[in-house]
Amino acid sequence: MKASVFVGVSLDGFIARENGDLDFLMPGQEEDNGFDAFLAGVDAVVMGRKTFETVLTFDSWPYGGRPVLVLSGTLSSIRGPPGSACELMNLPAAEVFARLEQRGLTHVYVDGGRTVQGFLSAGLIHDLTITRVPVVIGRGVPLFGVVPRDIRLAHVRTRSFPSGFVQSEYRVVS
Amino acid sequence: MKASVFVGVSLDGFIARENGDLDFLMPGQEEDNGFDAFLAGVDAVVMGRKTFETVLTFDSWPYGGRPVLVLSGTLSSIRGPPGSACELMNLPAAEVFARLEQRGLTHVYVDGGRTVQGFLSAGLIHDLTITRVPVVIGRGVPLFGVVPRDIRLAHVRTRSFPSGFVQSEYRVVS
Repeated sequence: MKASVFVGVSLDGFIARENGDLDFLMPGQEEDNGFDAFLAGVDAVVMGRKTFETVLTFDSWPYGGRPVLVLSGTLSSIRGPPGSACELMNLPAAEVFARLEQRGLTHVYVDGGRTVQGFLSAGLIHDLTITRVPVVIGRGVPLFGVVPRDIRLAHVRTRSFPSGFVQSEYRVVS
Repeated sequence: MKASVFVGVSLDGFIARENGDLDFLMPGQEEDNGFDAFLAGVDAVVMGRKTFETVLTFDSWPYGGRPVLVLSGTLSSIRGPPGSACELMNLPAAEVFARLEQRGLTHVYVDGGRTVQGFLSAGLIHDLTITRVPVVIGRGVPLFGVVPRDIRLAHVRTRSFPSGFVQSEYRVVS
């Protein structure tokens, strides 16, 4: 099983403002940044509670009927929108990964700051596609956090968009 | 007068490790990332004390006889290597900028975390060339800090190198 990250960040590396707001990602919203194609190849989605709550505010649920695993140590139950398949899990990244693999899933999309950090630190992320927005916001939810050791990546490709968004794809090496 | 930033950062946005070490920038060192051409167009360099101390450890002094303004609130004097033209200044970014402009300088290179942040927050940076290294180091000296408000940039160009370094040039819009 392969776990991938596909995320937009400010130039200073934030995936959301402190209050979860994603407004700064909007200028590139009408461009095809490859997200739909990426999502089409994904079996399941893993995210933290805060990301889940942010996605619930979107006009539409992006994940269709795919299993969406919401990691939380505090919630006792969750409810996604009609037609969604949301499950609550309160386990460390390695356990979550193992359970999804046992289900025969092949490609998982990992989203949200702490969730990405947990999977990355545990060596469970295969690749990251990072779309960088040309704005410095100063504070927010960081994509990366402290890591147990340097994580080296291989650059796969980079492309830029008329909005000024720059998207780089990396494969985790070690 | 124009102030520019030209800097290498880890994928998680650090310009140096906590101890000032730049080892993670080394894999791309043999590539021509345009630094020499950039420096050839620069009249003067502005940096903080920590960056100055790191540059002093380099095998050679990169700035020739150009004025190098070292910003420090604690040092009482500084001495650069033979042939260098280092001056100590203990002034806010806007004052430093005004003084350099008064000298008839046209293009200043601003380097170092706090110094870049001070100039950027004061609206004094014209453009940034950021070369992103494909490694996550977790902790270090951040390129960006808290800003008084969002700083919007225009993407000028991006190129990538065989080392996996990805270099993007941005112009500050507002």
